[in-house]
Amino acid sequence: VKSASTCSLLNRYDQFYIFTHVRPDGDAIGSSLAWGRALRLAGKSVQIFCPGVIPDKYLFLPRAGEIRDRVPDGNGAVPAFVLDCSDLNRLDYMKEKVQELGEIVNIDHHVTNENFGDYNIVDTSSSATAEIIYDLIGECGFKLDREISLCLYAAISSDTGSFKYENTTPRTMRIAGNLLEYNLNPSVVSRKLFDEYPLSTIMLLRDALATLRFEEEQKIAWMSVTAEMIAVNGARPEELESFVNYVRNIEGVAVGILFYHTGNGETKVGLRSNTVDVAAIAWELGGGGHPRASGCTISGDASTVEKKVIDLIKVFISENGTPAVE
Amino acid sequence: VKSASTCSLLNRYDQFYIFTHVRPDGDAIGSSLAWGRALRLAGKSVQIFCPGVIPDKYLFLPRAGEIRDRVPDGNGAVPAFVLDCSDLNRLDYMKEKVQELGEIVNIDHHVTNENFGDYNIVDTSSSATAEIIYDLIGECGFKLDREISLCLYAAISSDTGSFKYENTTPRTMRIAGNLLEYNLNPSVVSRKLFDEYPLSTIMLLRDALATLRFEEEQKIAWMSVTAEMIAVNGARPEELESFVNYVRNIEGVAVGILFYHTGNGETKVGLRSNTVDVAAIAWELGGGGHPRASGCTISGDASTVEKKVIDLIKVFISENGTPAVE
Repeated sequence: VKSASTCSLLNRYDQFYIFTHVRPDGDAIGSSLAWGRALRLAGKSVQIFCPGVIPDKYLFLPRAGEIRDRVPDGNGAVPAFVLDCSDLNRLDYMKEKVQELGEIVNIDHHVTNENFGDYNIVDTSSSATAEIIYDLIGECGFKLDREISLCLYAAISSDTGSFKYENTTPRTMRIAGNLLEYNLNPSVVSRKLFDEYPLSTIMLLRDALATLRFEEEQKIAWMSVTAEMIAVNGARPEELESFVNYVRNIEGVAVGILFYHTGNGETKVGLRSNTVDVAAIAWELGGGGHPRASGCTISGDASTVEKKVIDLIKVFISENGTPAVE
Repeated sequence: VKSASTCSLLNRYDQFYIFTHVRPDGDAIGSSLAWGRALRLAGKSVQIFCPGVIPDKYLFLPRAGEIRDRVPDGNGAVPAFVLDCSDLNRLDYMKEKVQELGEIVNIDHHVTNENFGDYNIVDTSSSATAEIIYDLIGECGFKLDREISLCLYAAISSDTGSFKYENTTPRTMRIAGNLLEYNLNPSVVSRKLFDEYPLSTIMLLRDALATLRFEEEQKIAWMSVTAEMIAVNGARPEELESFVNYVRNIEGVAVGILFYHTGNGETKVGLRSNTVDVAAIAWELGGGGHPRASGCTISGDASTVEKKVIDLIKVFISENGTPAVE
């Protein structure tokens, strides 16, 4: 484990900064809050930074409201923990500040991590950065408490889709079990993370489902959401986040698509599959992502864009087939 | 543990029957298959029975297709394991057969269990009957294999809503972690259990969402599905199972209702809440269930039934309030 040298770094300083990535998810926020709390319990002074707004759904995590979106000037040498970031560009407008600060400890679980730190604790077998933080707290002899456990549990649950995704390992489950010992309520956490939405989301879903269409013997399915549909329902574009799953989850659908026509001449395209390499498809369209979840942004007339994407997927499926799951 | 005497029963017989309840869920099916497989690996002859059809979504479980819906005549003395049943009425048309067979081993986790067996292994702290089977396999010195692990894992995941419900304990997570060691893919299992539906389901959801209505400052929300809507979409009534959650999950909604007007003069009413005791409400309407999930069936004209239920909930909320979660 590379964390031994990190523990020695901890002894050399009294103040630390923690940074996590732009558009933070549950793992980014939960891991940062947990590590911050553990350091504070060990007598350290800590500030946590994130380049941007913390989404409302994560504000139930203790002290999530104290995460700052601006780094102060004149810091002197403060070591920076950078959490859940595959590279420093994930820190957006905070990148240069971090590089000026001092030593960087890179703690992450992404396979694409660039080992950009002076210290690199990268474990790609971890479902979440929170698993690494859990171990680090133990290895450094720090304490766990209910607040840390809640943040780590929420982080792991978030990055595994409530223990559904393939990244969920036996170790993931055992760590989550240990964290639950701290009197956590999994039902409350999962409701906050997954099962609560504003009325506008369900009204927008209703309108989106009305646009559901199919091609290629229902192997390709899509919904088309417009900026106007979002406005009419008093919704925000972020509320579309999980909609493409409704398409992907239909039996027999190989590729599910969500088209979001933003109204400024661009269409954001979300692609999901259980069988087809949609990262390769997104790549051809100038986007990227994972084999089962990818996306891209395309300029042009709405119907032209839709036809372009669907035609490309048709060709891809005819050349590569739609492998069975498992 | 009461299982010591069960282990001795196992030594006295070579043949066993396993029974589980009508309208079987993932725990009923998974626990029965797992226990059957464990007994067979120990050299026993086993048959598994369920009064009714195994839903398609569970047919990915090994040997689920071999579960029988008729008990043969002339059995002699065969001990019967009755799994996941709070009382023998849960065995529907198989109840009398089971009572004729011989000794009954009652293995269950429901708080309402009536200890109807000659042997009763009832543990209400278990999230699922599968947790009890997991322990029993260990205590009897039986083997786990991938098939057993898959069935137990699916059973636990099913009864905890993928580890989301309050019944999920540290022990639940650790057992699930141990089961995952047998090379299971949590993503494939959870897709089968939760995240795959026929096209008819999503079309029916679209139509159901169009009926969403509110009262009492959006504290009460409901959707109304008719037999005609089901028929038009080529769906089956079972596909309504999770629809009421879409209502319950809306921010600010205290009670979510699904009315299913069956077309034969009856309305099936599903009630869900995060804060209100909907079991008490269902009880007043002649139904029953859990504090957060209950239901009832009411005869009469559709709009009269809806008004009756909504008015009762209004009174209940005005008398009892809507407590905050946690």
